[in-house]
Amino acid sequence: MTASADVISSPANPRVKAAVRLRDRREREETGLTLVDGGRELLRALAQSVEVDHAFVSTELVVGADASAALDALQRVGASLIEVSPAVLAKVAFGDRSDGLVAVIRTPPVALEGLASGMHPLVVVVEALEKPGNLGAIMRTADAVGASAVIAADPRTDVFNPNAIRASVGTIFSVPLAVATASQVLDWLVGHGVTAMAARVDAPQAYGEVDLGGPIAIVLGSEAGGLTSTWNDPRVRPVRIPMLGAADSLNVSVAAAILLFEARRQRSPGAAQRP
Amino acid sequence: MTASADVISSPANPRVKAAVRLRDRREREETGLTLVDGGRELLRALAQSVEVDHAFVSTELVVGADASAALDALQRVGASLIEVSPAVLAKVAFGDRSDGLVAVIRTPPVALEGLASGMHPLVVVVEALEKPGNLGAIMRTADAVGASAVIAADPRTDVFNPNAIRASVGTIFSVPLAVATASQVLDWLVGHGVTAMAARVDAPQAYGEVDLGGPIAIVLGSEAGGLTSTWNDPRVRPVRIPMLGAADSLNVSVAAAILLFEARRQRSPGAAQRP
Repeated sequence: MTASADVISSPANPRVKAAVRLRDRREREETGLTLVDGGRELLRALAQSVEVDHAFVSTELVVGADASAALDALQRVGASLIEVSPAVLAKVAFGDRSDGLVAVIRTPPVALEGLASGMHPLVVVVEALEKPGNLGAIMRTADAVGASAVIAADPRTDVFNPNAIRASVGTIFSVPLAVATASQVLDWLVGHGVTAMAARVDAPQAYGEVDLGGPIAIVLGSEAGGLTSTWNDPRVRPVRIPMLGAADSLNVSVAAAILLFEARRQRSPGAAQRP
Repeated sequence: MTASADVISSPANPRVKAAVRLRDRREREETGLTLVDGGRELLRALAQSVEVDHAFVSTELVVGADASAALDALQRVGASLIEVSPAVLAKVAFGDRSDGLVAVIRTPPVALEGLASGMHPLVVVVEALEKPGNLGAIMRTADAVGASAVIAADPRTDVFNPNAIRASVGTIFSVPLAVATASQVLDWLVGHGVTAMAARVDAPQAYGEVDLGGPIAIVLGSEAGGLTSTWNDPRVRPVRIPMLGAADSLNVSVAAAILLFEARRQRSPGAAQRP
């Protein structure tokens, strides 16, 4: 593809305007589409056969190895490519960096019914999550520990928010992800024999004293309000992250990481059982 | 204080305009001032005797316990309080939530020379950090594990960026914080007998196999570029966080948390030494 009369250089172009509208949550929810910005993110989406509606390309900006590989992959799957000027691409992109590629994709399904719990479940549940960046960081951590799934209970952001995709570096496509209400999630966990371990500041036991080696879900409350009363349930086991300082809580993605990496450690062959 | 003719309701008021300009990094650096938004943040700043230049208050919005306590504390230290309308406060505030209080403070000193390494140092070094939200999350984690200090090496954000303060929930004031170049930081660590443990994806040893119980600094690279060559030094020990998934890196604040909580675990009385 070379620069030619076919290059869109007007931000008033209807397809460009439609893509810009996808920054708005309501528009994403109505159309079932979202934006993927960046080479690595797009490669990971394509590796999971995410459906690309069309993609904006500014060929002169496609320079890195990931971006070039993503462009090749888009061409291989026969995606509709729209060449745009760098200025127009900057309008469609939302990050501070861009790899010269922004794709409009169909958001993957997130039904809880479609989720497999896996052989040795290690699930993450986040309730009422507000910040897409935190969801993205949690997906990255879930990927790193080989978690079975991430479940967003009553999220206050749409999970395929472009900033969540970006913050996840595309792992949001490779780790199984579902959305449901908190009580549906608890029922699902119980039904699949998965013990819910709820992170609470007032839990009697610290995470280092608890067996995290079995089929478990780490359950984390929202940044602002903590966990709702759904998790005050005899089937839920509270667990505490010890805090030595002035504050009584951690960033939710940090809390997730501490518990998930401890669970991973306990699962590794030869790990000393701590409790 | 009651609503009266003294209430500023014009966003064109010179003090309001000056505060709004503090959203700009250059303005913060030129004036040596920054903005603290929120009750808990302000309480933690005042607990460390941070110097308040003046504060904007919208009394009808000061409803929570933290906000009320912060307003009392501001009055106790004799801070200059400027009553403004809720609309003007919203203009000065930068978060999505506000507690009815925004203070203009003098940024605390961050010279490396002023930093004490402590009796049993557990230091965090972050190089070329770009995102204020990540710095804030790291400060929160450092506070939680009782870390001796956080050092920002060649940061690409000003450390007292209002978003860093906000994301730290005010712990940025309670945990010792310094800024220096990477080579100054390495010299400081060596000079204080602190072993630099650099997080690297290609390190031969995983963090669970390494003794993190001594005087150490956890050293983390930037979100985009990793660590610079300053840390390719025989005095620096590389350490790896095992990654099982598609991606080869974690969010920097997540990586910091995993290593810091493991270091904390190894330091706790009765902890089994893992290596």
